[in-house]
Amino acid sequence: MRTDWIAVDWGTSNLRAWAMGGSSIQAHAKSDDGMGSLDRDGFEPALLRLISPWLSDGGKTEVIACGMVGSRQGWFEAPYRATPCTPLDPSGLVTVPTQDPRLNVRLIPGVKQVKPADVMRGEETQIAGVLALNPGFDGVICLPGTHSKWAHISAGEVVSFQTFMTGELFALLSTQSVLRHGMAGGGWDDAAFDEALSDTLSRPDRIGAKLFALRAEGLIAGLAPAAARARLSGLLIGIELAAAKPFWLGQNVAIVGSETLAQSYARALAAQGASPRLIPATDATLAGLSAARAKVNA
Amino acid sequence: MRTDWIAVDWGTSNLRAWAMGGSSIQAHAKSDDGMGSLDRDGFEPALLRLISPWLSDGGKTEVIACGMVGSRQGWFEAPYRATPCTPLDPSGLVTVPTQDPRLNVRLIPGVKQVKPADVMRGEETQIAGVLALNPGFDGVICLPGTHSKWAHISAGEVVSFQTFMTGELFALLSTQSVLRHGMAGGGWDDAAFDEALSDTLSRPDRIGAKLFALRAEGLIAGLAPAAARARLSGLLIGIELAAAKPFWLGQNVAIVGSETLAQSYARALAAQGASPRLIPATDATLAGLSAARAKVNA
Repeated sequence: MRTDWIAVDWGTSNLRAWAMGGSSIQAHAKSDDGMGSLDRDGFEPALLRLISPWLSDGGKTEVIACGMVGSRQGWFEAPYRATPCTPLDPSGLVTVPTQDPRLNVRLIPGVKQVKPADVMRGEETQIAGVLALNPGFDGVICLPGTHSKWAHISAGEVVSFQTFMTGELFALLSTQSVLRHGMAGGGWDDAAFDEALSDTLSRPDRIGAKLFALRAEGLIAGLAPAAARARLSGLLIGIELAAAKPFWLGQNVAIVGSETLAQSYARALAAQGASPRLIPATDATLAGLSAARAKVNA
Repeated sequence: MRTDWIAVDWGTSNLRAWAMGGSSIQAHAKSDDGMGSLDRDGFEPALLRLISPWLSDGGKTEVIACGMVGSRQGWFEAPYRATPCTPLDPSGLVTVPTQDPRLNVRLIPGVKQVKPADVMRGEETQIAGVLALNPGFDGVICLPGTHSKWAHISAGEVVSFQTFMTGELFALLSTQSVLRHGMAGGGWDDAAFDEALSDTLSRPDRIGAKLFALRAEGLIAGLAPAAARARLSGLLIGIELAAAKPFWLGQNVAIVGSETLAQSYARALAAQGASPRLIPATDATLAGLSAARAKVNA
């Protein structure tokens, strides 16, 4: 089985690589060597630790990578392209100088929006993947995560987008703030999520008054940890959806993701009358990386 | 100089004590032995390390303490009193069993509100202090901090109150989140604070969309760290003031605090047409502890 090329998703915390035969996956590997834990000289060795079994000595193997690896603090800077723009442009890919003669590494640049200021790195590849998997897609793509993104897509271009710190806020509040005391352990409560989300969507201006109540109800009214966690999630996704309303209201919405988080977004949007479709994140990433490879070789 | 009694403010992070001659301060001492860093057996030694120079061998010295020391995880639980109630009631004070025969320690209980669920420990003493310093005060007391409190006071009672996690959110976001990269170092920018605050008060529903922009503007538009910090503060105090509007709108407002944070709140409320007065936090705490002592000895 010959590896034609290698697809790489290299974020702040993780490095994931796929050995590809055309557009089918031959092997998959991942490590914790995210951009955040590497200095500039550490990227090539970290990549080789993961993919060297897939390299052949007889020539260069093409590697296409997306994500924070292309940021200024990453391996090599791939300068942002500016909206409105297609999510991918072969001329924007940056070739990284490497030591190992078996490597030919190209990085996909992120996309920036000048006003209101916003940036993405990695999501542009998933957006390209959604468009590759759904030719002619027109509408809105929601990418939930540490920094959730909403992108308005028209005629194959990213017209505008907006980032929300929802996932990072949830992580900080549920593990580092005073609220952590009331949500130890796992567990989930759909009813608590739904109610918090609906309350917040109808009165987003009251969010400031809702957070500490999770702690107070734990202390004096026995609020269960599972309900507290789900309610915090509902509050935070609620203020995201409130501010993102111009994106999703009356629009054709695709959510990139299939796990619990994406399902929570789908559930929330469905409660507001939207009918989002879910697209697995890895499918979107690989379709985007494949599209990038096809374009540079076209 | 004889110490009549000892006033103690014992929070999660700090322990502060004052040797009092009547209502005047003879000496002051503080340490990092906050409730959060002590187990149950550690409280008495921590207190003695600080106050033993003020104790006499010939009898018991009265110690009156407020704050998290009286929580379930503290030295000894002083059960919450429930609103509506006066901020202090001598019958609610709890005497702590101690080893050292020179000590007579009493803890001031916190106050809870059943619905919406809320709790305070320490602020009830500052509120009592504001009432002692301003007899007949009627209106709203704002206590900015890690967990800001707003309390509606009528006829000497705490009628209702509300806690906001504003200070803790600022600390988490400015030092632990992705936003920290754009606000290293000190510095402040009044204009950035004012603008963010006013924007947020008029459109609190957009808060979710405003946070990540601090990072993005730092990356692509050169937003200065001082402006980013001040704007984050304006955004967070803005959503607090938006949700606290029923407290301050058209009310007589006193802010407990005199440092930069309290001044930011005063500046923000003044921009909305309110005329808050500032009361130094230590004055309020000591007046409240003195009032508690006077009541138990009445």
